Amino acid sequence: MSDLRVAVLGVGLMGADHVVRIRDRISGARVSVVNDYLTDKAEEIADRIPGCRAIADPLDAIADTDVDAVVLATPGATHEKQLLACLEHGKPVMCEKPLTTDVETSLEVVRREAELGKRLIQVGFMRRFDDEYMALKALIDDGGLGRPLVLHCAHRNPAVPHGFDSAMVVRDSLVHEVDVTRYLFDEEIVAIQIIKPAPNPSGPEGLADPQIAILRTASGRHVDVELFVHTGVAYEVRTEVVGEKGSAMIGLDVGLVRRTGPGIWGGQITPSFRERFGRAYDTEIQRWVDAVHAGVNVDGPTAWDGYAAAAVCAAGVESLQTGLPVDVNLVARESIPGA
Amino acid sequence: MSDLRVAVLGVGLMGADHVVRIRDRISGARVSVVNDYLTDKAEEIADRIPGCRAIADPLDAIADTDVDAVVLATPGATHEKQLLACLEHGKPVMCEKPLTTDVETSLEVVRREAELGKRLIQVGFMRRFDDEYMALKALIDDGGLGRPLVLHCAHRNPAVPHGFDSAMVVRDSLVHEVDVTRYLFDEEIVAIQIIKPAPNPSGPEGLADPQIAILRTASGRHVDVELFVHTGVAYEVRTEVVGEKGSAMIGLDVGLVRRTGPGIWGGQITPSFRERFGRAYDTEIQRWVDAVHAGVNVDGPTAWDGYAAAAVCAAGVESLQTGLPVDVNLVARESIPGA
Amino acid sequence: MSDLRVAVLGVGLMGADHVVRIRDRISGARVSVVNDYLTDKAEEIADRIPGCRAIADPLDAIADTDVDAVVLATPGATHEKQLLACLEHGKPVMCEKPLTTDVETSLEVVRREAELGKRLIQVGFMRRFDDEYMALKALIDDGGLGRPLVLHCAHRNPAVPHGFDSAMVVRDSLVHEVDVTRYLFDEEIVAIQIIKPAPNPSGPEGLADPQIAILRTASGRHVDVELFVHTGVAYEVRTEVVGEKGSAMIGLDVGLVRRTGPGIWGGQITPSFRERFGRAYDTEIQRWVDAVHAGVNVDGPTAWDGYAAAAVCAAGVESLQTGLPVDVNLVARESIPGA
Amino acid sequence: MSDLRVAVLGVGLMGADHVVRIRDRISGARVSVVNDYLTDKAEEIADRIPGCRAIADPLDAIADTDVDAVVLATPGATHEKQLLACLEHGKPVMCEKPLTTDVETSLEVVRREAELGKRLIQVGFMRRFDDEYMALKALIDDGGLGRPLVLHCAHRNPAVPHGFDSAMVVRDSLVHEVDVTRYLFDEEIVAIQIIKPAPNPSGPEGLADPQIAILRTASGRHVDVELFVHTGVAYEVRTEVVGEKGSAMIGLDVGLVRRTGPGIWGGQITPSFRERFGRAYDTEIQRWVDAVHAGVNVDGPTAWDGYAAAAVCAAGVESLQTGLPVDVNLVARESIPGA
Repeated sequence: MSDLRVAVLGVGLMGADHVVRIRDRISGARVSVVNDYLTDKAEEIADRIPGCRAIADPLDAIADTDVDAVVLATPGATHEKQLLACLEHGKPVMCEKPLTTDVETSLEVVRREAELGKRLIQVGFMRRFDDEYMALKALIDDGGLGRPLVLHCAHRNPAVPHGFDSAMVVRDSLVHEVDVTRYLFDEEIVAIQIIKPAPNPSGPEGLADPQIAILRTASGRHVDVELFVHTGVAYEVRTEVVGEKGSAMIGLDVGLVRRTGPGIWGGQITPSFRERFGRAYDTEIQRWVDAVHAGVNVDGPTAWDGYAAAAVCAAGVESLQTGLPVDVNLVARESIPGA
Repeated sequence: MSDLRVAVLGVGLMGADHVVRIRDRISGARVSVVNDYLTDKAEEIADRIPGCRAIADPLDAIADTDVDAVVLATPGATHEKQLLACLEHGKPVMCEKPLTTDVETSLEVVRREAELGKRLIQVGFMRRFDDEYMALKALIDDGGLGRPLVLHCAHRNPAVPHGFDSAMVVRDSLVHEVDVTRYLFDEEIVAIQIIKPAPNPSGPEGLADPQIAILRTASGRHVDVELFVHTGVAYEVRTEVVGEKGSAMIGLDVGLVRRTGPGIWGGQITPSFRERFGRAYDTEIQRWVDAVHAGVNVDGPTAWDGYAAAAVCAAGVESLQTGLPVDVNLVARESIPGA
Repeated sequence: MSDLRVAVLGVGLMGADHVVRIRDRISGARVSVVNDYLTDKAEEIADRIPGCRAIADPLDAIADTDVDAVVLATPGATHEKQLLACLEHGKPVMCEKPLTTDVETSLEVVRREAELGKRLIQVGFMRRFDDEYMALKALIDDGGLGRPLVLHCAHRNPAVPHGFDSAMVVRDSLVHEVDVTRYLFDEEIVAIQIIKPAPNPSGPEGLADPQIAILRTASGRHVDVELFVHTGVAYEVRTEVVGEKGSAMIGLDVGLVRRTGPGIWGGQITPSFRERFGRAYDTEIQRWVDAVHAGVNVDGPTAWDGYAAAAVCAAGVESLQTGLPVDVNLVARESIPGA
Repeated sequence: MSDLRVAVLGVGLMGADHVVRIRDRISGARVSVVNDYLTDKAEEIADRIPGCRAIADPLDAIADTDVDAVVLATPGATHEKQLLACLEHGKPVMCEKPLTTDVETSLEVVRREAELGKRLIQVGFMRRFDDEYMALKALIDDGGLGRPLVLHCAHRNPAVPHGFDSAMVVRDSLVHEVDVTRYLFDEEIVAIQIIKPAPNPSGPEGLADPQIAILRTASGRHVDVELFVHTGVAYEVRTEVVGEKGSAMIGLDVGLVRRTGPGIWGGQITPSFRERFGRAYDTEIQRWVDAVHAGVNVDGPTAWDGYAAAAVCAAGVESLQTGLPVDVNLVARESIPGA
């Protein structure tokens, strides 16, 4: 069986990681095409991968006969057009979040894929491929916690780039917990409220940080998420499900434990999402490659998952402004056969 | 120096514990008088304590010349009258929570003590005397976390007695986190909201369990508290402060760790508040005895702390009914000189 | 019931701690007499305790009619004479380790007490009163580990005083694990070997540090102990029992856990035995006081335990010199009726 | 660059794992040939791998022109002949432990490879590729512990196959800690003693289990290893290095932590080496494939490492019989240029 020929569109941080991942750690796939709006960068990367070309136009890259499948790591604003091109050419696509940058176009992508009658789009919510999240999901599904009732999350970054604003905390950080909630609880989120405590005095002027998100699911479950993007400490993602028969927590990040310094014991927290979820990305891509090879739908997050997350985050951004709870409006899923 | 002669009023669970505590583990004090509305029970306990008498009327007990100080473990509804009697006789009193059963009478007690110009009342918020809470407070006060920003709490009981209703979750359970918040953050709580997720199907019919309390402090800090009183697991109290320079968590309850059973590692969680906070009670009473001996004000929670907690819980009970945030109304502390 | 009048002999570090302990935290006892070879120091301490006198001669102190019981915290070399005086006057005595400074005199003390037909001596192996050791003992005795097979110990000090030599590591540090072994396994130790790895280059010249002790019990169980007295880190005492049905570990010393600094999580290790075992000392003394009051034998370590520990340590010191395993010689316990 | 064509010799448990690993998770390699003395099994596996043939004779498989490199997972007794064939054909070989089944033939393999002047053999000590061992090694090499002084290991299996005898505990279990010691401390082991405590009554008749291995390194460091192969619990591998500036422990195996059951907290221990070290095997093979592609020597364990481990284990088996310490005899490494 020959290697899956993958086009990686967008070779910034995430895309460049994917190129190296596919070259070095993924079995059964190779990068045949790269594309970036910075064409020099794409050329430079193509030169380092045997049998890889740079193609300047993303739509040409998608259409190319040397491309079996696409990894989309371009800016979100270009996703809609590129996703539709993938659908048109019948090419499987692994789309980094967000699906698109607004709810309407996300829904449009969902509809267009549903019309095709074939699932081609996977959205890059990689936590679903993390060993600990999978263990937590299995524990819930096996009934080990009884009926799950409450979810507590903390999502902390040591720092984020200059220009990261309050709405990006919702759209780029919270979006992961939105997907985690839907994944663990297997139901939609119906309301969201963002609480803005007095901000961290060490954070950037004007940024609402930390933020507290309060979610309610269709069946009335409660979720709270601490979002804190300028902690100065490390990348910390902690998740606790409280159920009818007990609770379970992941993300304690315990590895090597030292007893050094005067009177200190402890360990190292992973510095960024790349260390924390590096293996989840590997698993995500390997399983996607395997599913494409096998011609089956991967069990990963779908376009609908991308749309639902977008709708929750849009409501979250509205709540960020008003401080009030905002209902999430989703179209009825059954109104789109195949979604 | 002769032993402090203590009257213990109310010898139910808490009061009986205090009698044994003072007899067996407290230095410099002895129980000289016990009282209970069940006079037989009081007699029976008195018989087991050398030099101890039962007195049938609580006010007589307070007034007795063989009593230097009082521990109040009677039902809350009787506290007001008994506290005022202690003030009248100038006798120091360690009053189990609540101070009184409503905000107005609590405030009245605060005023009456303030008029005396002498602090005689300590309220039994024993967590302030727990090693881990004291370590957390010290870490905050030493600046180890920078400015504290957010507080996450979980307060879980394996089960509560029949008849424990939704408002009691606020008044009897949440009240501890209300005091912990005020203790750790050194400021008042200005608003409270109680969220009622879909209830635990294994819990008693009609009980809102779990509940989520959202508190806001005067300076805008955020506090969330999971209250869950029928977990079936154990007594779990976990507290995490998130600050400008990092976070700190207590209540992990790690002692002996076993690796037994097929593939299981772990330990035992303390079954109830008596094991979890037994030593905090010892410390609370010993320090109170020492302070009374020394004629100084103990550094424990005051009548004002009892009043403020009552006001927050009253607002909480209101929010429990409406589901909406409720402002907490406190009189200005400076309007009561000496409070 | 009036307070037990205790004479504390020796008011150096340990003895002074006991004076404060009895004054401040022990119920039912008071320090009536103190003694020290530094008479000024004894006077100074007596002045701070109501109703307490200094007596210059330790044997006079023991004999004094104002003394019901004795705490011995004098140098080990004086113990034999003082213990025999306690036996002669029929006064209960809590003797800090060692029982005496050699095996023969320890055995003599055992015989003399046995002849009295009344247990008056308790030896200060305080770990038996530590919550975690008691939990470990209970787990073993309840069969939770099946038959215990192996014991791993680590006993680390941040530093020890100038002049602490290699034999003192055995006599003053290892002696605790010797008693722990006998306590947990309820049998005698029959052989000991001390291994001297290449020493810590940061430690004092000439000190064998770390040392590894290998013990064998009568039924063939294995015990290993890492002794390391100049770690520069903290006071660390970790104990793991491996049994037929699993293992259990104590001494993890987890309390408040911080996530601070760049990428660091962890906590504080207790700096010295005073913090680590402070409460065990309180429990030890309170239970001793209670037992003396009640006229019953305390369930604490006996003169025989002191003698057995001395015999094991003497063999250990011999092995320290030769590097070879050394058999432990104990007289047959049944040859001394009442021991 | 075309895929490395790998022959996997021996498709029992380990070999079959490697076939699946190379097919599913390794980038840049494919299994072109499989071989097993059970020819049906080899055929069956070959049929499931595109482009893979079964070859009945292992030496033919090594010599085949469709084979670039060899993974040796055959029984140890056949390794010598197969390794020499690999050397003869100049083919890189990843040889599962043991290198050979005795010290002399291991040394012969070392000499023959050294004569070639080219490193072709890597030995399958996969722990060197485990994240935690690598972190521990990095901590030591970075000086974070100062000079390492002592190593404590526990190596526990829930059960081992029928017929696993006392010497196999040394040769098949201890061998890993032998390599870990040499890896972490970068020096040879000069003496070994096996202590046999009273055996686990639940274990198989006649098996010395647990065993305690005491190792001494050339510079005088101490290593102790608890080997316990019938614990009934899980697969537990714990490693602690104690150094001049502190200690570090790995293998705590903390992932998802539950608080369930009445009063229980804890998690799951990995059931076998496949879960515990599965990723280390992936890393081992991926890095070996990459190194072969790149034409460079992999930084993995060498034939010398295999020989040294064999020599230590042979001395260990001798000690197992006598109970006494046994010196390890290694030829001088510098006497074999290129080893």
